[in-house]
Amino acid sequence: MTVEVIAIGGYEGVGGNMTAVKVEDEVIIFDMGIDLGNISEDTDIDRMHSLDLIEKGIIPDDTLMREVDGKVIGIVFTHGHLDHIGAVAKLAHRYNAPIIATPYTAALIERIIKSERKFKVENPIHSLKTGNKIKLSDKITLELIRVTHSIPQATIAALHTHEGIIVYAKDFKFDDYQKTSPPPDYDRLKSLGKQGVLALIVEAINMDVDKSKASTYSERVVKLILEGLMKRPLVEKKGMLITTISSNIERIQTIADIAKDSNREILFLGRSMERYCGLAESLGILDLPSNAKILRRPKEINEALNKADDRREKYLLVATGHQGEPDALLPRIANGKTPFSIRPGDTVIISAPIIPNPINKANRHIMEKKLRKSGARIYPDAHVSGHAGREDHRDFLKMLKPQHIIPAHSYLSMLSLYVELAEEEGYRLGRNVHLLRNGQAQVFNGYE
Amino acid sequence: MTVEVIAIGGYEGVGGNMTAVKVEDEVIIFDMGIDLGNISEDTDIDRMHSLDLIEKGIIPDDTLMREVDGKVIGIVFTHGHLDHIGAVAKLAHRYNAPIIATPYTAALIERIIKSERKFKVENPIHSLKTGNKIKLSDKITLELIRVTHSIPQATIAALHTHEGIIVYAKDFKFDDYQKTSPPPDYDRLKSLGKQGVLALIVEAINMDVDKSKASTYSERVVKLILEGLMKRPLVEKKGMLITTISSNIERIQTIADIAKDSNREILFLGRSMERYCGLAESLGILDLPSNAKILRRPKEINEALNKADDRREKYLLVATGHQGEPDALLPRIANGKTPFSIRPGDTVIISAPIIPNPINKANRHIMEKKLRKSGARIYPDAHVSGHAGREDHRDFLKMLKPQHIIPAHSYLSMLSLYVELAEEEGYRLGRNVHLLRNGQAQVFNGYE
Amino acid sequence: MTVEVIAIGGYEGVGGNMTAVKVEDEVIIFDMGIDLGNISEDTDIDRMHSLDLIEKGIIPDDTLMREVDGKVIGIVFTHGHLDHIGAVAKLAHRYNAPIIATPYTAALIERIIKSERKFKVENPIHSLKTGNKIKLSDKITLELIRVTHSIPQATIAALHTHEGIIVYAKDFKFDDYQKTSPPPDYDRLKSLGKQGVLALIVEAINMDVDKSKASTYSERVVKLILEGLMKRPLVEKKGMLITTISSNIERIQTIADIAKDSNREILFLGRSMERYCGLAESLGILDLPSNAKILRRPKEINEALNKADDRREKYLLVATGHQGEPDALLPRIANGKTPFSIRPGDTVIISAPIIPNPINKANRHIMEKKLRKSGARIYPDAHVSGHAGREDHRDFLKMLKPQHIIPAHSYLSMLSLYVELAEEEGYRLGRNVHLLRNGQAQVFNGYE
Amino acid sequence: MTVEVIAIGGYEGVGGNMTAVKVEDEVIIFDMGIDLGNISEDTDIDRMHSLDLIEKGIIPDDTLMREVDGKVIGIVFTHGHLDHIGAVAKLAHRYNAPIIATPYTAALIERIIKSERKFKVENPIHSLKTGNKIKLSDKITLELIRVTHSIPQATIAALHTHEGIIVYAKDFKFDDYQKTSPPPDYDRLKSLGKQGVLALIVEAINMDVDKSKASTYSERVVKLILEGLMKRPLVEKKGMLITTISSNIERIQTIADIAKDSNREILFLGRSMERYCGLAESLGILDLPSNAKILRRPKEINEALNKADDRREKYLLVATGHQGEPDALLPRIANGKTPFSIRPGDTVIISAPIIPNPINKANRHIMEKKLRKSGARIYPDAHVSGHAGREDHRDFLKMLKPQHIIPAHSYLSMLSLYVELAEEEGYRLGRNVHLLRNGQAQVFNGYE
Repeated sequence: MTVEVIAIGGYEGVGGNMTAVKVEDEVIIFDMGIDLGNISEDTDIDRMHSLDLIEKGIIPDDTLMREVDGKVIGIVFTHGHLDHIGAVAKLAHRYNAPIIATPYTAALIERIIKSERKFKVENPIHSLKTGNKIKLSDKITLELIRVTHSIPQATIAALHTHEGIIVYAKDFKFDDYQKTSPPPDYDRLKSLGKQGVLALIVEAINMDVDKSKASTYSERVVKLILEGLMKRPLVEKKGMLITTISSNIERIQTIADIAKDSNREILFLGRSMERYCGLAESLGILDLPSNAKILRRPKEINEALNKADDRREKYLLVATGHQGEPDALLPRIANGKTPFSIRPGDTVIISAPIIPNPINKANRHIMEKKLRKSGARIYPDAHVSGHAGREDHRDFLKMLKPQHIIPAHSYLSMLSLYVELAEEEGYRLGRNVHLLRNGQAQVFNGYE
Repeated sequence: MTVEVIAIGGYEGVGGNMTAVKVEDEVIIFDMGIDLGNISEDTDIDRMHSLDLIEKGIIPDDTLMREVDGKVIGIVFTHGHLDHIGAVAKLAHRYNAPIIATPYTAALIERIIKSERKFKVENPIHSLKTGNKIKLSDKITLELIRVTHSIPQATIAALHTHEGIIVYAKDFKFDDYQKTSPPPDYDRLKSLGKQGVLALIVEAINMDVDKSKASTYSERVVKLILEGLMKRPLVEKKGMLITTISSNIERIQTIADIAKDSNREILFLGRSMERYCGLAESLGILDLPSNAKILRRPKEINEALNKADDRREKYLLVATGHQGEPDALLPRIANGKTPFSIRPGDTVIISAPIIPNPINKANRHIMEKKLRKSGARIYPDAHVSGHAGREDHRDFLKMLKPQHIIPAHSYLSMLSLYVELAEEEGYRLGRNVHLLRNGQAQVFNGYE
Repeated sequence: MTVEVIAIGGYEGVGGNMTAVKVEDEVIIFDMGIDLGNISEDTDIDRMHSLDLIEKGIIPDDTLMREVDGKVIGIVFTHGHLDHIGAVAKLAHRYNAPIIATPYTAALIERIIKSERKFKVENPIHSLKTGNKIKLSDKITLELIRVTHSIPQATIAALHTHEGIIVYAKDFKFDDYQKTSPPPDYDRLKSLGKQGVLALIVEAINMDVDKSKASTYSERVVKLILEGLMKRPLVEKKGMLITTISSNIERIQTIADIAKDSNREILFLGRSMERYCGLAESLGILDLPSNAKILRRPKEINEALNKADDRREKYLLVATGHQGEPDALLPRIANGKTPFSIRPGDTVIISAPIIPNPINKANRHIMEKKLRKSGARIYPDAHVSGHAGREDHRDFLKMLKPQHIIPAHSYLSMLSLYVELAEEEGYRLGRNVHLLRNGQAQVFNGYE
Repeated sequence: MTVEVIAIGGYEGVGGNMTAVKVEDEVIIFDMGIDLGNISEDTDIDRMHSLDLIEKGIIPDDTLMREVDGKVIGIVFTHGHLDHIGAVAKLAHRYNAPIIATPYTAALIERIIKSERKFKVENPIHSLKTGNKIKLSDKITLELIRVTHSIPQATIAALHTHEGIIVYAKDFKFDDYQKTSPPPDYDRLKSLGKQGVLALIVEAINMDVDKSKASTYSERVVKLILEGLMKRPLVEKKGMLITTISSNIERIQTIADIAKDSNREILFLGRSMERYCGLAESLGILDLPSNAKILRRPKEINEALNKADDRREKYLLVATGHQGEPDALLPRIANGKTPFSIRPGDTVIISAPIIPNPINKANRHIMEKKLRKSGARIYPDAHVSGHAGREDHRDFLKMLKPQHIIPAHSYLSMLSLYVELAEEEGYRLGRNVHLLRNGQAQVFNGYE
């Protein structure tokens, strides 16, 4: 009896994640994500067909599943970022199987399915809490294990099979101090390690020691940093803006908590702010103070900006556009395309990294140049990563002790750095560390 | 009546600081530092003559003072780092004037004078607390203002003269949360600004926005980072080492506080650890817990390392050598030249930056390579800077509102970045921002 | 009697050059350039008023000339790049003085004046050959000295006055091996040095030793490089494209000479190709072989591309767009917006640097990604700079031996690197090296 | 029947190359190199035992050959660099098989064997010219194919077997214009491709597009560059030094040719200059002019330096030490440890890259700093690589059309970049591109 891991997408870059695990004649799919790097300005995803999107490299090429001789019995999403769930409305309907995810992730998936214009997606959606298991078949049980990332209710998935446990661990960090997410369930991870993990499919995004931390800092470090940066502008009679990643609910919570007792009204502005924050608030994950408000509709945003332009000392504007994307709010403010104008001495805090590709760098450069020209004081990069660092991954390997490892979710040269880490821990490429390309499969024989 | 600022050293690079301020016929000297970058391995500074050291660029060239027509009435040291006080024993005896510094700085100066082998330095040493003033002559009063840096009792000096106030502000950051240093005295700085600052001589070390933070983070951020990094190794049955900058007493305090309730004995090892920490402890600045000890003599260090080699889970070794300097303790441990051997799984935390010159990079590379080969887990760069960032400097200018500015303590290309900042605040190079080279002077006419 | 150098534009960045030299009551203006970095996509320069362009930082702010008490008797342009001549149609008409330039530069200026829509520019245009002098007044004689750059007929200007010689040397390299430009007139430069140069205004663009060559390579080095790169594709049955800087006539000549005996027709495509190359050809500077053609009008370009698409092995397309500017030809080809499609195995040679700003990097990245996706083989950066390197500048100083130096045409931090070079040669900032900001003036007393 | 490629050394970094190819029961070994990166200052290689050197990672770990069931019938060295031949005296005697190499490489190997102090190496040495074949057994014929690199007589090896051809191509570039080496034998490479290449083992050193050229430039490009740089100093009355890589005979030839007609005597100084150049001269590869001399013994070098110190305008000193290695000649001159002192205006040309590791960077930095302090004018990095660029490798694949590819001679992350190139050409990792780690083997079935 064998287990097969099929790399569908996300094994040759960052984005477009999709993996199938076949246990005898049954198949579980993990993630259906999009590759944001391949989307150009004029792509109207909502109206496009899967095959076009596959050709453009925007969604994973799941056509190889036709040749996989097995029945899909579940589609599992481990967290709610678009590179993991963004293709659900384009691909899920092809499989007669339920969608399974934690409640917050499930709610985000429902939203995507609702806004889809091309396909009708009717897969049932099962909400599964971390710590709980679900029996997918006689042979396979799924468990979602609590972990932390840069979005709430992120999980590591474990498939319990007769051949051993398969762990799917994409997108996580070890953070014991988030307010909106409890700490990772280290005990459970260690106990899986004792039971016997046959194979680990694991992210390898932050492996570049020169550019990342050996161990990724907690969000509470950003909290201190933001407290330091926000202290002065909160009390000054000037404008104050923060841009951050809308799905980073912990960061949103932090900003709100710091500004809670100020004399400013906190406005979270924009559609994606509303999507992630509104949902998180309705599920009781995000706890906004009474001086905070989420505004979604263009009209109400414009009215608010108009008021804020006159009485700028009374508002803290939290806007989208941390990468300088021309259509997002902060870049539009910088360009003078909204009722709110930057004035000398206004503070702009960018609580996000520059995602290091030349286009983002150009957009950020243009935005910051314009903001500075208007007299803004800019505090960039008040941020920590949501991905485990090199030494965190070593700790993870020590907990899980997998027989086999498949690093994923990055370019080959970055995956190679994970291979070297694994080799430091006694593994060996080709023997028990495996590099898969999209479309390739690795077969394991359980309990050898 | 005029005031003249004479750039003696430290205006063309980082190190070797010395400035004279002449008010009519009286002169105050600020700092007598060494330039560590020009010291090669075989330099025996203690036995060398000033003129040789001047020729090698190790100490400031104060021979130009012969041509300054005025009487030196005070030598002021604003904090205790070697690039500010290291040349005191080579230069101070030439001037018939007292040395003035805060108690901790004064104690460090006394140590240097004691170890000098070439010159007899007999200048009286006056200890002056921050917040206090001392009347140096009928026309000049010196005040030391509380500020924070990466060493205790750092100060900004203000000379009160009939022509206005001269502020000497080299080496500071704004940190409101240090345990061993109270926050900067912002109120006093603002009130100086109201009284009228004629000229500001100011450090310009962290002006490179691409490489530094817009606002330098507090030491309490490092505390959180170190808590995160130290948590696991503190309880593991493995060796644990930290290297940091001996004079960074706040950092030493942080490390001790975090490890205080662990089962490990905290050993601060080495001569320079003893110099800075021992002195800080005796002055009540540093408060070490009962499980901490400072060891200075090679013999006792060796004995301790021997014991620690056997029972490594019982010790936290805090060692010198953060830049990989071959003769310091951690590099010697890495090289197998001490009784303590690194074993697989031991943790090494480097709580210091790589000072970015090729020699340090090579030394650090060699040290880290050897540590890794022995199986150490390395956490580098758990550190924040001790120097103000670009936006902090802007805040500083808003407080002081100086008529004239002289940026100092860096290379011309870095000083230029300060000039650009000052120009953003309404100043103009050549009119009221002045670039001095070593040996040049700038004359100001007070209250124009 | 005094000479005054007035920095109007180009002293705080790269672009927008304009300098006035006042000798007693007469003024000579050097260059009227635009700052390409401040032009955004929607700027319609041809129709804009000077004051608007000044406000946007696109042309130099010459309003300060109102306060200069003297008569402008000549406007001198030392070569034909837009950052030196691009503002002529916006500014020259304000001065009742002739325009003076070498024939090629003069012809380019005439073109700009013709396409101007806002102002009527009627200054007489005098064409002056290098090696010749023109008496501008009783007191001032202008001489243009032959030098090399990346455009033909580049010059160094010398003003002969009773107070000494003023040399204006912006944009040059020392290249003894160009086909379209004779070598620099070193003898004349040395003889000026012997006569006595009062002040040198000099470019400081390539001073960063880490990023540039100590001595800038000759164009004949690029010729060898291009020969190597073009050899294979010239004979293959595939498409072949080169993009380069239209005004770099030497490079155009090199490309044509290499492809001359191939079986391909060489097509230089686009309006700016026609402007610079057509003019150079008509003046006998550029000598194109019989298998080369310059196409300007969109219609003929499209027809040619259409033919080339079918019989790609028969053409060498030389296109604009080396920085990936979206509206230029090569990026449009990459985007599939022309009748010519890139096919697998086609070769694209980029004979230009990436001008290092984030926007160019993004545009180049997007273009190269698309080209690669279509299967193109890309050879980037077959290029050498047109600006003197650090050691070349040292040689220049040794020739001219100026009493005073004003480095220009870069950011303050780069100008600082020139200051350090000058100081190595015995000069000193503030004494005989002067840093001017736009709007500032430096007064010299001749023959002190 | 199968062919097996066994990766012994050089598959996890740059250096220590050794590969075995097993065809049925017969084995051919390629290269026995050292890893210079693992040698520390106090290593006395000549006196050390193989097992110690293996443990320190200095020579390949060939102990795994004990388990290889086959008879070694030949040891082939494809060129004479130490990372390919440096371990011959430590490993070859273990195998009862002849050494085969081109004459120059063979002569270098003989020298190494002669200086060995620990082992007696008595393998017969067969000199094989490129273009010739040697029948190693009934089943295996070896052919050495002419190629270019940065040392003369570099080759690509082809093993003709019944299963197909195995090509071993480590360390080459395509350079059609070297004086001391004829162009690569492209025709033969293409004809191998037609016959059928089963597997290609290929270097992957220059794969990093951001840091290397798409196509590596010819040595004739360096010739032009050196001509440009040497022109001025050759005729000045100043000192003139060049440092380059001793084994780069083409470069040596170039330098000699440029200085041939000058009034300077060209002195090649040092033991390694003598080793490589002396040998090349005696074999008729290097053709030194009458004003050139190679000096080897310390005494004669000192005498020459003494004379050159007095009459510096009469000599061109070509010295070792391009990486600033403290014991090499140029760094010793910089340190004032020889009879020759650098004086202001002397020129130093460094015709070598900085091999990018922190130790070299530090050594170079120290050397250059000292040279500059003495007044030297430094021209660094007049160099082109000896390794094929990314597009050159693509051309190579098009010639050979191998069924399988094993990239080698670099770190995993760099090998990955080769994998991506191969995948662009239709190969696929795991199917016909294979990543081996030291100690692993890949089995091929010929003519499947």
